Amino acid sequence: MATTRLLDGKPVAQALLEQARTQVAQGRAEGRVQPTLASLHRGGATPFSVYLKQQGKNAEAAGLLFRDVGLPDGADAHALRSKVEELDRDPAVHAVIVEHPLPAELDFTGAVRLLRPEKDVDGVGPVNLGLLVARHTVQAPAVALAALEIARHYGVDVTGRRVAVLGRSETVGIPLALLLLAKGKGADATVTVAHSRTPDLAASLAGASVIFSCVGSPGLLTRSNVPEGAAVIDVGTSTVPDPSRPSGVRIVGDADARSLDGWASALSPVPGGVGPITVARLMLNAVHGWKMLTGKGSH
Amino acid sequence: MATTRLLDGKPVAQALLEQARTQVAQGRAEGRVQPTLASLHRGGATPFSVYLKQQGKNAEAAGLLFRDVGLPDGADAHALRSKVEELDRDPAVHAVIVEHPLPAELDFTGAVRLLRPEKDVDGVGPVNLGLLVARHTVQAPAVALAALEIARHYGVDVTGRRVAVLGRSETVGIPLALLLLAKGKGADATVTVAHSRTPDLAASLAGASVIFSCVGSPGLLTRSNVPEGAAVIDVGTSTVPDPSRPSGVRIVGDADARSLDGWASALSPVPGGVGPITVARLMLNAVHGWKMLTGKGSH
Repeated sequence: MATTRLLDGKPVAQALLEQARTQVAQGRAEGRVQPTLASLHRGGATPFSVYLKQQGKNAEAAGLLFRDVGLPDGADAHALRSKVEELDRDPAVHAVIVEHPLPAELDFTGAVRLLRPEKDVDGVGPVNLGLLVARHTVQAPAVALAALEIARHYGVDVTGRRVAVLGRSETVGIPLALLLLAKGKGADATVTVAHSRTPDLAASLAGASVIFSCVGSPGLLTRSNVPEGAAVIDVGTSTVPDPSRPSGVRIVGDADARSLDGWASALSPVPGGVGPITVARLMLNAVHGWKMLTGKGSH
Repeated sequence: MATTRLLDGKPVAQALLEQARTQVAQGRAEGRVQPTLASLHRGGATPFSVYLKQQGKNAEAAGLLFRDVGLPDGADAHALRSKVEELDRDPAVHAVIVEHPLPAELDFTGAVRLLRPEKDVDGVGPVNLGLLVARHTVQAPAVALAALEIARHYGVDVTGRRVAVLGRSETVGIPLALLLLAKGKGADATVTVAHSRTPDLAASLAGASVIFSCVGSPGLLTRSNVPEGAAVIDVGTSTVPDPSRPSGVRIVGDADARSLDGWASALSPVPGGVGPITVARLMLNAVHGWKMLTGKGSH
């Protein structure tokens, strides 16, 4: 029985932030303005607040200006769209992230599609998703890219291999499957997408050498359904009660780490795996958008 | 050994054309203008010519006006884009199909993305592909819809089942996988996408109860890789030499029909399976776009 490698996300996040910082410094040396990332959210206490704080910190570390844009209480879909349009027009803003998921009545898709693809820094607007399908990618979802970054960093190869993606959300599972199905090194995978309506998970995972789990279902993956020796990249994030913590809760992934220990060849932990990489990858996306939008010597 | 049902596309195509015709008649009775489908192509003899002729015939049968728009000899990407923009602006045109595949230098994606989603009647522009990912579908590729239509017509159920899609093109295999991964009846499938870089096709198809093959590789599917009892929907189309025909060639699919006879539970033939349904489905897409673009009582 092989030992299960635990894939620590922190060094991967650090390396990405370092890349972003270097690119910002180079761009500024060429005369570009400093990049600005705007994060648009409902305001108030939402699950997004924690993420927002991390965005601010990571932006600072990478040399980006960060604009925290909260909507007023009770803002509706129209207010959200107006704000998105304003940020899209603003030449001082190079990258925009819009909180999601949002309640259906706020019409996230209708709002984010108003961003030009370069500024839709999380790659979740329909134009960017379509460009991803058409293999003319401009921006791809940061969390999907983060899952690939951790695999690449630790030499978990997907190229030409059988890979399973659990979860079919339009912002995580599907974009990740599309990236894995792209052509060339780091892709070319034969991909199975399983989800809540998959009747027999073990049968669908049989033969997969890498499993990306993006469901948000604690304890979903165990020895009973993961093939022995497979690598598991855990993208799931759930909150479960934990009376031993001051907060009363803790964050867990989809994998049952105890069950998979000594069974899977590798496992990315939650927290501390894909999570920190996602925010760092978002900064790299923002820098990518900024480089596309600004020419050398622009002000 | 069960008999292999041959799934004839003609009655399916007829039923779809009948639907289109009924909807056109209803719309016109409500005061809408007659729908117009424009088909934009390179002009001259391309593989598209045959398809163009079928489009014209089907449009007539469904009660649509058909506009055959050939580009002049030597037209470049700029000329293609200008023509697409002109057709997008033209209020008398409700649906536009752009020839594809096109040589890379004509930049198909760059041209088709200039169409508003309703008019991009083959659903292959990046906005429509993205809306398909985001599950806010406006138009989806006719060939992918046709493959699902033939399955539905003959009771080949995909709902909640393990389904394989062979081929990862952005206009056929990927959109079909996305439609199969949608939520609800006629979808909810657990989908494996295999392709030219899949190392062991038989292993990837094991457990699939339905196989959609969209590769264009004659004889690809045989008893050696198709699970016994699986249904095969053949979307592949290739031309092979056949000296016994006046044309010297014949059209074949991906399936080796002789090998699969008595092995697969069902097989859609090529020609005569998905092909005729695709053009009929395109008419239904055109009618769908026309209904979205025209209000009751418009002129």
